Amino acid sequence: MYSFRNDYSEGAHPSVLKALCETNLEQTCGYGLDPRCMAAADLVRNLCAAPNAAIHFLVGGTQANLVIIDALLRPYEAVIAAHTGHVNVHETGAIEATGHKVCTALSNDGKLTPALVESVLSAHSSEHMVLPRVVYISDTTEIGTLYTKAELTALRRCCDAHDLLLFLDGARLGSALTSPENDLTLPDLFALTDVFTIGGTKNGALFGEALVLRTPCAHFRWHMKQRGAVLAKGRLLGIQFQALLENGLYFEIARHANDMAFRLRDGIAALGFPFPVASPSNQQFPVLPNAAVAALQAKGYEFEIDHAVDDAHTCIRLVTSWATPQDAVDAFLKDLAAC
Amino acid sequence: MYSFRNDYSEGAHPSVLKALCETNLEQTCGYGLDPRCMAAADLVRNLCAAPNAAIHFLVGGTQANLVIIDALLRPYEAVIAAHTGHVNVHETGAIEATGHKVCTALSNDGKLTPALVESVLSAHSSEHMVLPRVVYISDTTEIGTLYTKAELTALRRCCDAHDLLLFLDGARLGSALTSPENDLTLPDLFALTDVFTIGGTKNGALFGEALVLRTPCAHFRWHMKQRGAVLAKGRLLGIQFQALLENGLYFEIARHANDMAFRLRDGIAALGFPFPVASPSNQQFPVLPNAAVAALQAKGYEFEIDHAVDDAHTCIRLVTSWATPQDAVDAFLKDLAAC
Amino acid sequence: MYSFRNDYSEGAHPSVLKALCETNLEQTCGYGLDPRCMAAADLVRNLCAAPNAAIHFLVGGTQANLVIIDALLRPYEAVIAAHTGHVNVHETGAIEATGHKVCTALSNDGKLTPALVESVLSAHSSEHMVLPRVVYISDTTEIGTLYTKAELTALRRCCDAHDLLLFLDGARLGSALTSPENDLTLPDLFALTDVFTIGGTKNGALFGEALVLRTPCAHFRWHMKQRGAVLAKGRLLGIQFQALLENGLYFEIARHANDMAFRLRDGIAALGFPFPVASPSNQQFPVLPNAAVAALQAKGYEFEIDHAVDDAHTCIRLVTSWATPQDAVDAFLKDLAAC
Amino acid sequence: MYSFRNDYSEGAHPSVLKALCETNLEQTCGYGLDPRCMAAADLVRNLCAAPNAAIHFLVGGTQANLVIIDALLRPYEAVIAAHTGHVNVHETGAIEATGHKVCTALSNDGKLTPALVESVLSAHSSEHMVLPRVVYISDTTEIGTLYTKAELTALRRCCDAHDLLLFLDGARLGSALTSPENDLTLPDLFALTDVFTIGGTKNGALFGEALVLRTPCAHFRWHMKQRGAVLAKGRLLGIQFQALLENGLYFEIARHANDMAFRLRDGIAALGFPFPVASPSNQQFPVLPNAAVAALQAKGYEFEIDHAVDDAHTCIRLVTSWATPQDAVDAFLKDLAAC
Repeated sequence: MYSFRNDYSEGAHPSVLKALCETNLEQTCGYGLDPRCMAAADLVRNLCAAPNAAIHFLVGGTQANLVIIDALLRPYEAVIAAHTGHVNVHETGAIEATGHKVCTALSNDGKLTPALVESVLSAHSSEHMVLPRVVYISDTTEIGTLYTKAELTALRRCCDAHDLLLFLDGARLGSALTSPENDLTLPDLFALTDVFTIGGTKNGALFGEALVLRTPCAHFRWHMKQRGAVLAKGRLLGIQFQALLENGLYFEIARHANDMAFRLRDGIAALGFPFPVASPSNQQFPVLPNAAVAALQAKGYEFEIDHAVDDAHTCIRLVTSWATPQDAVDAFLKDLAAC
Repeated sequence: MYSFRNDYSEGAHPSVLKALCETNLEQTCGYGLDPRCMAAADLVRNLCAAPNAAIHFLVGGTQANLVIIDALLRPYEAVIAAHTGHVNVHETGAIEATGHKVCTALSNDGKLTPALVESVLSAHSSEHMVLPRVVYISDTTEIGTLYTKAELTALRRCCDAHDLLLFLDGARLGSALTSPENDLTLPDLFALTDVFTIGGTKNGALFGEALVLRTPCAHFRWHMKQRGAVLAKGRLLGIQFQALLENGLYFEIARHANDMAFRLRDGIAALGFPFPVASPSNQQFPVLPNAAVAALQAKGYEFEIDHAVDDAHTCIRLVTSWATPQDAVDAFLKDLAAC
Repeated sequence: MYSFRNDYSEGAHPSVLKALCETNLEQTCGYGLDPRCMAAADLVRNLCAAPNAAIHFLVGGTQANLVIIDALLRPYEAVIAAHTGHVNVHETGAIEATGHKVCTALSNDGKLTPALVESVLSAHSSEHMVLPRVVYISDTTEIGTLYTKAELTALRRCCDAHDLLLFLDGARLGSALTSPENDLTLPDLFALTDVFTIGGTKNGALFGEALVLRTPCAHFRWHMKQRGAVLAKGRLLGIQFQALLENGLYFEIARHANDMAFRLRDGIAALGFPFPVASPSNQQFPVLPNAAVAALQAKGYEFEIDHAVDDAHTCIRLVTSWATPQDAVDAFLKDLAAC
Repeated sequence: MYSFRNDYSEGAHPSVLKALCETNLEQTCGYGLDPRCMAAADLVRNLCAAPNAAIHFLVGGTQANLVIIDALLRPYEAVIAAHTGHVNVHETGAIEATGHKVCTALSNDGKLTPALVESVLSAHSSEHMVLPRVVYISDTTEIGTLYTKAELTALRRCCDAHDLLLFLDGARLGSALTSPENDLTLPDLFALTDVFTIGGTKNGALFGEALVLRTPCAHFRWHMKQRGAVLAKGRLLGIQFQALLENGLYFEIARHANDMAFRLRDGIAALGFPFPVASPSNQQFPVLPNAAVAALQAKGYEFEIDHAVDDAHTCIRLVTSWATPQDAVDAFLKDLAAC
């Protein structure tokens, strides 16, 4: 039975794998200074309409987050995140391990707003407290929601007003940018953030996050190396992002992931099960009776339990990817209907 | 022209790539808890005759070093290394970034001895100084030399006498174990160290270091995650180490790398050029006239400059790998002879 | 006019200063290993009925908190605190600067309960999250409240049930232990916590916090030194704690501070001003009309603004100390009555 | 018998203690923002002819060193020190605990030179290595030697040429500036360094180091607070430095310490014992027969053993201070003569 546990259950999209095989015996220098990474960086710059952007490729999301945030902050500075933010909850204190506090704001939909950011700022007024300096958001968020262009523009203005830097974690940016509810483009992201990532791991690569910096950060490669975040065979990152970005594959397969998610969502809703938070992306959070959850698990379906809603109901998380077959979705819906 | 710059200029050995392709659409759970990593860990345990060893797979060498050393040390404790040790020189302060001092001993051949270790210990006598606790060695060393079983046994006794932990960095362990001068086995390494790594990056994998712990370290996966060292598609590490280890491929290709290095060495020596430090492994350090160095570079050969010997001579580093063709070696020797 | 800003506005209690003067020309060894510190440590052990306790003396509260917490935790472990906890808010990320996350629970009265602790634990379930390990509480709390013996016993049981360590920050322990509502003793604190501090800075010393560890922590002096927390003339700490503890001065002057606070509290209440949170200790938080606040400030009284209650009212913080004269209290009340 | 173990065996100079007593009941705000600290900072600025210098007061030397160095460096940057430098040897890895490597140069006399600094720079050439950025020196050095104005000027030029910052640790600056061999002034130090300290602990204060920054460091008080280096009753630092600096007491008592050291040195030399390194300051390092060392210890004299010279001789360290009576020196010499 299919696993809807996450969007990194399989290897890489076949085109990515093919590119790795075809270039396998090329000799290049190491550490991401090779022609493949250069070409992939140019692709990113073109897609972002950002000829002067600094581009770096890292292996994973937690690694990217900790390197970026540590590079942007002075020791006494802190990052602001939604209480559900990945850097706050799911990185085993990786940010704190670089010496920095994560200041949180309670957010119902996984998103930050200027009002939430300012509520954190107003609580930090002297040298007895950390100085919040980076605003961390993710798109899509950890609960599948999206930022609109208006929302992101408002955050940008808030950051400008308070001398803050805006970092958008795009681990699931493919799903965000291809969502029917999205009105943001890569050039918008470049214009509105100080740094953002384009996630490969969750959208067809074996691994890899492309980092886009509006202003080059001095000695960023030193920061990366110090955190063990420079891949010896760095070209593997360049080759994968070339394969994903040069012909629009990245967006095509993200759209497929979303389509499969919406097929799941619509089918589940048609069966009468509610979704407490509407998600226009590849993560769906339906509430099912506990008996249905158990029955699906017994059949071999895999997914994460998000939380217990009440004694009889559980909110689960279903995630689709570039690799999710429509048949698997339909089989799931059929099995759910039979529960 | 061929690049002898390092042993990670190409992608992966074709058998490794084939294994990645064949398993690409398998669904597994993430983070290295999948059946492929379990199977690869069992292979490592079998090869080490260590049924109770704790095995973890990490992406890169600096990452592995910083995670291990930080996991083994308390905040006030330090690591002892040769002054040429990778953790001292070539990791951008990665160990210090986890809060720990690297105490160095001057070593002519890249190796530590009990006397060198004890010279560091004797300089650290009170709470005003760090407490040395881990001894870091590499095999092969950064300059191509090897530890004998007698030397490693002596270090083990020294560590036992002083309550120290012994960590052997095996980024180039394949070359070490297949060197004609080697008398160590994987079970020896397991018996004589507290932790060691089996390097994949420099011996045929796309990336990957297998970590072998004599005693399981509590919450080691927490340490890894906190440093961004847990790969989402962790099975990629398991698949690669399975391919390398299940039929002896790892040793076969390391032997090839050594053979190519010895062919280089012998050919260069036959031309009358000296080698200040004898290396029985896949890194060779001949001294050439500056004119010859320039001529080889002009022809397109790539290699690292190790150091200037005098105004007219330079010590260069030549590295071979699983991928180095004999033709490339012979062409280099022919071109050198013509210089 | 008198400053009620804090309990460290003056120097030291005259008896403390006298002891410093009388011992000034004694020669002792440095770093807290001298006979004065030994004697003061014995006094603490006697008062705590804890002949085997490890005692250390540190200069300040933030310093003590960061050294203790870092010493107790492994890198991936975290501390649990009330959201108002000093380590969470008022130490400029000192705990995070040692690499550790502060996990917070929302608390109305500044205190933690087993339920609050367990709510944090239940949100941390795997290696993707930090591992909460130390419970940080303060007595009195940052808002003047106290722990009862029943409450502290319940927390101890909760800690035992979940393998947690309990750390009580006693920066204002004098005020706590002499409060009419207190039913805890120093032996109780020793029996119920893993480590606690006896604050000197806020109760008559020039500076100094005595640290009481139920179980000696290996190499604690190394931890201290590494954080710059070993005072060269360490005997200054021993001399002061001797003066404070050998004849009960510590408790006598804390009782005075409380008495002055209650005189303030009762006088203010008699004038009809409310206290949102009842405080049985030397910090009082009345709500005054903004005009009264401004009038008192215009007269030269100093105090901290805690928060704006509404457009017309402000909650202020008034703190008394060993040095607060009754006349100053009475003058304040008279001036407030005239506002 | 007198202890020559260090220059912080007694309390404070009586004038310092008197000032503390006289101001004891003044109320001031905390954390070093009070009028006493302001006045002391003005005194420092005047003495340094540096009206725009930023002045901060810290409690101890290791604390000052770690706060300054961490404030000056980005995460991947390192400090250069003589191998005997206090930050390298005697601070339990305090600098590394803030994440930074200490790069060392072998120095026979405890001093750095441009050549030594450049030897470190030349070994750090890429993002695989730390970036040396701060040059740490001490005056006097850990072995009693002094910098001349020519030497310090040469280091300044070296720092300017390589974009380095120069930090002079003046824990024993009093002894340095009053040495007969000294040709530096406070204005020179201000002009030639980026930051230096004026040590109080080892020259008559209970504790305290005054920090002089040529260019104000943004948010330096945040750095201090985060490291637990803000003293609640900060005025204690201001009061002490006022007492020491307003009438030249600081220099007068340092001169006394030097005079007593020279009396010791000349007396010991007259007895025929050698001094391997000439010291023009308050630390003297004679070589004595082991029997003499034992005899002096048996009589109750205290001093540190520096190192064993050979089987029969030991180099000891004798330190004098503002408090050392001439009688104690003469008694020591007499007892040594009798050995």
